[in-house]
Amino acid sequence: MPNLLNVLGFMNYSHFGSKFTQPNGITQLMEDLGNAKNSNNPNLVMLGGGNPASVPQVNTAFINELNHLVKNNKIAQIMGLYDGPTGNDEFRAVLANQLTQEYAWNLTASNIALGNGSQANFFILFNLFAGKMADGSHKKVLFPLAPEYVGYADQGLTDDMFVAIKPEIEILNTPNGSKQFKYVIDFDAVKAVLANDNSISALCVSRPTNPTGNVITDDEVHQLDLLAKQYTIPLIIDNAYGDPFPGCIYTDANLTWNSNIILCMSLSKLGLPGLRTGIVVANNEIIKAISRVNGAMVLSPNSFGPSLVTRLIKDNELLPLCKNTILPFYKNKAQVAVSLFDEIFADLPVYLHKVEGAFFMWLWFKDSKITSEQLYQKLKKQDVYIIPGHNFFIGIEDSWEHKHQCVRINYATDEATLKKGLETIKTLIM
Amino acid sequence: MPNLLNVLGFMNYSHFGSKFTQPNGITQLMEDLGNAKNSNNPNLVMLGGGNPASVPQVNTAFINELNHLVKNNKIAQIMGLYDGPTGNDEFRAVLANQLTQEYAWNLTASNIALGNGSQANFFILFNLFAGKMADGSHKKVLFPLAPEYVGYADQGLTDDMFVAIKPEIEILNTPNGSKQFKYVIDFDAVKAVLANDNSISALCVSRPTNPTGNVITDDEVHQLDLLAKQYTIPLIIDNAYGDPFPGCIYTDANLTWNSNIILCMSLSKLGLPGLRTGIVVANNEIIKAISRVNGAMVLSPNSFGPSLVTRLIKDNELLPLCKNTILPFYKNKAQVAVSLFDEIFADLPVYLHKVEGAFFMWLWFKDSKITSEQLYQKLKKQDVYIIPGHNFFIGIEDSWEHKHQCVRINYATDEATLKKGLETIKTLIM
Repeated sequence: MPNLLNVLGFMNYSHFGSKFTQPNGITQLMEDLGNAKNSNNPNLVMLGGGNPASVPQVNTAFINELNHLVKNNKIAQIMGLYDGPTGNDEFRAVLANQLTQEYAWNLTASNIALGNGSQANFFILFNLFAGKMADGSHKKVLFPLAPEYVGYADQGLTDDMFVAIKPEIEILNTPNGSKQFKYVIDFDAVKAVLANDNSISALCVSRPTNPTGNVITDDEVHQLDLLAKQYTIPLIIDNAYGDPFPGCIYTDANLTWNSNIILCMSLSKLGLPGLRTGIVVANNEIIKAISRVNGAMVLSPNSFGPSLVTRLIKDNELLPLCKNTILPFYKNKAQVAVSLFDEIFADLPVYLHKVEGAFFMWLWFKDSKITSEQLYQKLKKQDVYIIPGHNFFIGIEDSWEHKHQCVRINYATDEATLKKGLETIKTLIM
Repeated sequence: MPNLLNVLGFMNYSHFGSKFTQPNGITQLMEDLGNAKNSNNPNLVMLGGGNPASVPQVNTAFINELNHLVKNNKIAQIMGLYDGPTGNDEFRAVLANQLTQEYAWNLTASNIALGNGSQANFFILFNLFAGKMADGSHKKVLFPLAPEYVGYADQGLTDDMFVAIKPEIEILNTPNGSKQFKYVIDFDAVKAVLANDNSISALCVSRPTNPTGNVITDDEVHQLDLLAKQYTIPLIIDNAYGDPFPGCIYTDANLTWNSNIILCMSLSKLGLPGLRTGIVVANNEIIKAISRVNGAMVLSPNSFGPSLVTRLIKDNELLPLCKNTILPFYKNKAQVAVSLFDEIFADLPVYLHKVEGAFFMWLWFKDSKITSEQLYQKLKKQDVYIIPGHNFFIGIEDSWEHKHQCVRINYATDEATLKKGLETIKTLIM
């Protein structure tokens, strides 16, 4: 495909421009999804993308809060003032207080920075810690557990910035014979990479994991934390779907933070993706660095997202909303998804990753002849959209067949749509 | 000053991290302004920063629109859906239509991309067109008229990305003897740079100019447009304060666009800086490039800013609001500012840049012994904040004395505050 800027003939383009405008698997995919959503096709079965569900009670809570801000004459100030480059001060103070109450982490606003969405924060974090270094060396971020969030893959300002480790695959014994598995971190491999490759400058893991719905165990987090400290590199945890908000975790798991952990959170999966508010919880040196980068790159993050939830956090209304409404809503969706899986794929060599968090099903078509990319193309012809799994195996060699045997399905939709999608998949993999 | 990340001892940092976290004049300045604003000092005279005024009728219009969106059940969708990476589709279509009606440019949504504020868009544009190029060469952006917006200076991913040309200074004959001047583009110098330095890959000018309130003439724009075409490089025009919104222009000036011009606009100076919405109007190849970069860097721009003004544009309410409310409001502020200047600096060798647009006064202390930086420090001790002018002379050598003889003053404030600030300045420069 021709480079976009080159088409103009007269325009030369930068290394950055070339790298960030390059068509790749996932940009094509996102364009497909965008076109499908805009098509107004009544038969569309949209199971791709990462949009959270519209949860009526949650919408009502946010709209009530908006009305409250209008009534109390706070809106003009929220819209009309630039926040500082670290993000809205009141929100940062209130959130620090809430996290300290919940987890006894002893945080202040100086441990929190905001950005225009978590993706924007990851761009800064990855490019602070890895790529071409000030001393001329080249550093990399290690994902200890592939598959991992595809949105990381194209964020490096420098080539070759990410390394990932293949998972161990554990087939689970389930009470009802449901064919499930769980990815487990291969710590021998992680330790070998850290011992042999001194270019690793950060660890990064999403928990709950996008795309698999995995929640790595407390013990896995503990081991990663120890390794990060041993190698004096930060551990970045992408907590976009986790506790305390939105709290989409259906298994026992505890949230950890210390000054060597960079915990990334978001308002998106609460139901506010349009407001683009990402949150970084870290030691103050990292927060100051993010603030400086924000100042140069974007002046300041938006005020509206954080301002909408500030009072809800301060008056301790947000976490009950998560616990009593959002969690049950998605937990129910997860149970429906597992039931449909058990029913539809009962007699086939198809495995489901244990549904522990977020709102994705990760299906593994073991011994399937059709690749996930071929399946995607065939499904697309039938107006069914999923994300083919190979995109999430960042930096894993193409020759590993498991890479081409999985798909991600967003189950934050209605049961009929999900059922139709899964049944269509069944007809294509048999 | 120690590098922020280095303080941790264990953390190495990237070239990007080092460059973008570097303390420099303007970050220190912004921290000063932030601290001053947070101080709740009743004696504070805040004339720094670029925050627009709070215009009551305009606030009311936006709050009414917000209530309208709530009443019509549109808010949940605005908050709850990711827009595509090019930004909100409906807003882009409506704005393209409005601009086509106003200026006969024949635009569609495919000519418009959004970002989380104009600063974010400039980061992308500068780094697409300049810096380390894909072919290994190094390119630069030329500012044909310094002083220029200070926020550009630290946006380059590569060092040495900007070149600026000193202005010609024209002392004006004013009817009442008001001591005014105007910066004019030195086209001989611009042409010489373009002819001799084949590393120039884009021209960029803000119009109205931040910091001077200058509006370069239609003829100057025309000449820049011809030069850009001659050298097959784009002309970037930063129209954040210009027509059709917010429309802060107090002189005769026409807005120009063609497929070689990249016109940058913003909702910020309408009174919505907290919503972080920047707009790029350009040929579709550039829009596609911005969209790809947005997708990788931030997933999608926020939906709230564009959605708040979509109906106002569609029903042709926004431009009348600009023309009948915003323009008269700032024009009055400008007249007050000029009157105060004439009165306070009557007998001193102090010159005011002709107030043609935006909401900044640019004072030139001709033959002053005190530098703008010294003046800034002395004013700060008296709780008066301005921006010392040398920061805006991006890439201009320190030895040019004019560089140290100017300050920028935000006059989007009340008359008493402005008067107090100007009078304090007078006591310090005499």
